[in-house]
Amino acid sequence: MALIVQKYGGTSVGSAERIRNVALRVAKWKAAGHELVVVPSAMAGETNRLIELARALQPEPDPREVDAVAATGEQASAGLVALALLAQGVPARSYAGWQVKVLTDSAHTRARIVAIDEARLRADLAAGRVAVVAGFQGVDAEGNVTTLGRGGSDTSAVALAAALKADECQIYTDVDGVYTADPRIVPEARRLHTVTFEEMIEMASAGSKVLQIRSVEFAGKYRVPTRVLSSLTDPQLPLAEEAQSGTLITFEGDPHMAMEKAVVSGVAAQRDEAKVTVHGVPDRPGIAYAILGPIADAGINVDVIVQNVSHDGTTDLSFTLSRGDLPRAMALLNDKVRSHIQCKDVTGDDRMAKVSIVGLGMRSHAGIAAKMFRTLAEEGINIQMISTSEIKISVVIDEKYAELAVRVLHKAFELEQD
Amino acid sequence: MALIVQKYGGTSVGSAERIRNVALRVAKWKAAGHELVVVPSAMAGETNRLIELARALQPEPDPREVDAVAATGEQASAGLVALALLAQGVPARSYAGWQVKVLTDSAHTRARIVAIDEARLRADLAAGRVAVVAGFQGVDAEGNVTTLGRGGSDTSAVALAAALKADECQIYTDVDGVYTADPRIVPEARRLHTVTFEEMIEMASAGSKVLQIRSVEFAGKYRVPTRVLSSLTDPQLPLAEEAQSGTLITFEGDPHMAMEKAVVSGVAAQRDEAKVTVHGVPDRPGIAYAILGPIADAGINVDVIVQNVSHDGTTDLSFTLSRGDLPRAMALLNDKVRSHIQCKDVTGDDRMAKVSIVGLGMRSHAGIAAKMFRTLAEEGINIQMISTSEIKISVVIDEKYAELAVRVLHKAFELEQD
Repeated sequence: MALIVQKYGGTSVGSAERIRNVALRVAKWKAAGHELVVVPSAMAGETNRLIELARALQPEPDPREVDAVAATGEQASAGLVALALLAQGVPARSYAGWQVKVLTDSAHTRARIVAIDEARLRADLAAGRVAVVAGFQGVDAEGNVTTLGRGGSDTSAVALAAALKADECQIYTDVDGVYTADPRIVPEARRLHTVTFEEMIEMASAGSKVLQIRSVEFAGKYRVPTRVLSSLTDPQLPLAEEAQSGTLITFEGDPHMAMEKAVVSGVAAQRDEAKVTVHGVPDRPGIAYAILGPIADAGINVDVIVQNVSHDGTTDLSFTLSRGDLPRAMALLNDKVRSHIQCKDVTGDDRMAKVSIVGLGMRSHAGIAAKMFRTLAEEGINIQMISTSEIKISVVIDEKYAELAVRVLHKAFELEQD
Repeated sequence: MALIVQKYGGTSVGSAERIRNVALRVAKWKAAGHELVVVPSAMAGETNRLIELARALQPEPDPREVDAVAATGEQASAGLVALALLAQGVPARSYAGWQVKVLTDSAHTRARIVAIDEARLRADLAAGRVAVVAGFQGVDAEGNVTTLGRGGSDTSAVALAAALKADECQIYTDVDGVYTADPRIVPEARRLHTVTFEEMIEMASAGSKVLQIRSVEFAGKYRVPTRVLSSLTDPQLPLAEEAQSGTLITFEGDPHMAMEKAVVSGVAAQRDEAKVTVHGVPDRPGIAYAILGPIADAGINVDVIVQNVSHDGTTDLSFTLSRGDLPRAMALLNDKVRSHIQCKDVTGDDRMAKVSIVGLGMRSHAGIAAKMFRTLAEEGINIQMISTSEIKISVVIDEKYAELAVRVLHKAFELEQD
């Protein structure tokens, strides 16, 4: 008997019919003797509908009130999933975040979980009930409803699994696992049976949309065995088969780890990026902060940052950001920063993509970067920025080459072979 | 400066545009120096949508989970109204029932308010904020979300007004007050400037849909001055005019009371009724209970009950109920009750209406009933049952005559004249 936390995304609970399928699936696990905590997202489209209503009333809506409004979507889903379970004869009870309670800080719309009181859930499990907990939300110390930000239900599920010391956190979604590349771009892409926590972190930041990065961080911090699997299979799929499906996130020291021998595990692309270059910056201490400080203060997230060696006492600093933030960033740099730091020019390019290869094996293998650059060069793809970590190499290229780059890299590293 | 609780119905908050109008109206009252607590219903159609989803998953859905699902509609509205107020520059904060908190018993889907902790709302009012409280809901002693039943937001508003000792509870709705009869049936129907609490109770039970009867009971118990007024007027209507609009519910001893001199205040009709008659019942103690006990146990609400004098040791007992409950009641009586009480026959009729005249003046005026019966007789309308209280006379008639009866009674009692 295992304690399992299952998270179901918005598509998985998108209609009464689909909620019934969720209940069938949960009932199957329950019937096999497992203890279940289920975390549903809001029904597909519901969160957007609520946020649009909020924005129609106040263009930059008050964060406390947005949270009060947006959290209702998951609360409704939780109750509906409980009803579907009860209809199957499975004892169940739903909880909003404040009822559990899931205590967070007070950073509305992007709150962080501080503590989870699992007593109430433990009592339900002991009584043979399935506990259904609304994802995406919590409550702060003053009793205000908070939300965890987009994709926050993944984080809710992993955090609940950590608090309950669950045997596995299962993230049911509309893809059937983590692939070596996006199968819509690379038909030969292969599902990974396991992926390490570090690789998953890099893949999330490299543009793979399978899991929200904060939930992966949480899984890593508390070493929560987390599996990504499909909610679109037949709910009556034999349990033994379903339990081995999808992709399991593993940790250093896990017995699973030794099995994973590939050097490169996957290729990911992040489109809709933009690049800013500040040219001819005087190369002196504090200059990077002078440029990026005002950007951060404006709430603009920066991704890759590259600064090269200096010539003649000046250097160029480039960084990437979401395409939508480019006009604001350019205005900020031209109006406030440029005269202050006395650079030569500021240029922006809004048609960029970041393509990354990720793999734990890179740590101990030379020549991976060289192979990546050669492969791209052979296709005539110009690399504009390079950024590396121990287990990831990212290049920023013209967006029009993004899909081609993913395909040729997938082939070059033979990712289609198990 | 007055403390005012304003309730807005589902139509009044049915779209972003209408929520903006609510905010304009609240802002106007606030600008005049008043303290405001606002209680919105769910957006029109939202509660039905949620309940239908629940029923699709479990035909007789678990009451605790239905409440968890249904309460989200008002929570979203409360947040949206707060956002619209903030957009107007009016400081505001929204609360779900549990946040206030509104403590109820645990009778899910029809909970009763036990206590309201008004400390948090008082703090908001003291800080110059408008408190927006989700209607229709509360929380029980174990922390489960409860709802007060259909129309429960009226009760929430009146209960909050009682707890805060508000100067007035204003129920904004899509009619502009209480009329002498339904204006769709009687074009000459006249709006009442005041109506007594007792008349309002009888009108609510007589089929006038203006206010939920429990909210009227609450208003009476705590003597909450309650005004029914229109949310469809121009939000910029001068305050002095709006403050005098609609219909004010008054109490015995109020200075307003003396002004109200009419004998009959209004005529109301309740359609969709059915009638059951148990014929030839042995006239002995306990027989009414033997018939109506099983009906009540089955959760069927009975309205008018009439039993006449006995002949030859047997009598007939008739009662009315909602049309939808007739098949169940007939089955119950035929299968379980009939052989037990040894009656002659059980008959049912599903095309009935109840027409009532209501007025505090009846207490001291003879001949009102006679005039009512004569008026109906002159139109050839057969009276099937009669039931009277101190301030109401109800007759049960064939449903096809309901509108005609209302019109002729309105004319006979000269209700079109102020």
